[in-house]
Amino acid sequence: MESFLHRVIAHVRNGRTSAADADWGPVESAIEMEPDCGAGIAGLEQWSHVLVIFEMHLDPDPVPPTLVRRPRGRADMPLLGVFAQRGRMRPNPLGVTTASIVRVEPGRVIVRGLDALDGTPVLDLKPCTNAFDRPERVREPEWFAELMKGYF
Amino acid sequence: MESFLHRVIAHVRNGRTSAADADWGPVESAIEMEPDCGAGIAGLEQWSHVLVIFEMHLDPDPVPPTLVRRPRGRADMPLLGVFAQRGRMRPNPLGVTTASIVRVEPGRVIVRGLDALDGTPVLDLKPCTNAFDRPERVREPEWFAELMKGYF
Repeated sequence: MESFLHRVIAHVRNGRTSAADADWGPVESAIEMEPDCGAGIAGLEQWSHVLVIFEMHLDPDPVPPTLVRRPRGRADMPLLGVFAQRGRMRPNPLGVTTASIVRVEPGRVIVRGLDALDGTPVLDLKPCTNAFDRPERVREPEWFAELMKGYF
Repeated sequence: MESFLHRVIAHVRNGRTSAADADWGPVESAIEMEPDCGAGIAGLEQWSHVLVIFEMHLDPDPVPPTLVRRPRGRADMPLLGVFAQRGRMRPNPLGVTTASIVRVEPGRVIVRGLDALDGTPVLDLKPCTNAFDRPERVREPEWFAELMKGYF
């Protein structure tokens, strides 16, 4: 099977060890760079938000993952393909969340609103841009607003 | 070095073979799912936009990549860390672009505005949501608007 190897560039430190799906909004996290990657965050303070691409490394999905299921297994949610939802059990357990940049320090970035557990490996950081990331108006299905209540 | 292996779930088909940094906005691409992943796109048509996580697989960076440089090597751009810019030469050549969903067909998703070459391996698809992806207001540095002229 065609695949690619990705190295860890940083780890998340925030003291949060429970995967409970709630109250991530105010959580402040330090993204601590691997020593050989620290130079790469220079200038990140020029931006307001950063896309954090991370590995949801705990409790991996049994192989092969279920490709069609209800979000969080909730009976009131529709039956959906894994690529039509954000859950972490997916063929590649990659997470992408846009977090706000609180400040940049030597060797680490402090962010707010990153829904990743303490110790989560980070694979990439990208500044959030209007051109690549922000369509003018996003349409979401109604079930998603229900699912996300209290998450951030 | 800590690392993770990620499998290819789909490939981009759009006939675009030049990496020229211009005019991606109107480009329509088919994201053709691997046969064992096709079921996972059910319900994606409920959303307006999709985050495409892909591998920028051509012309890999010499190892180790340059961690501080000017975007596209342009003398009028600031000297910046690789994680403060979107260029493709980075420790992990991951691309993340939010594309609009034109339609979903059996085994493939047709999108517009994906800046990936024909044949690009795709690692994940996620619906674009306001909660995870859309901060209210994004601040960008001035040089970025200059850099992006004509890109989309």
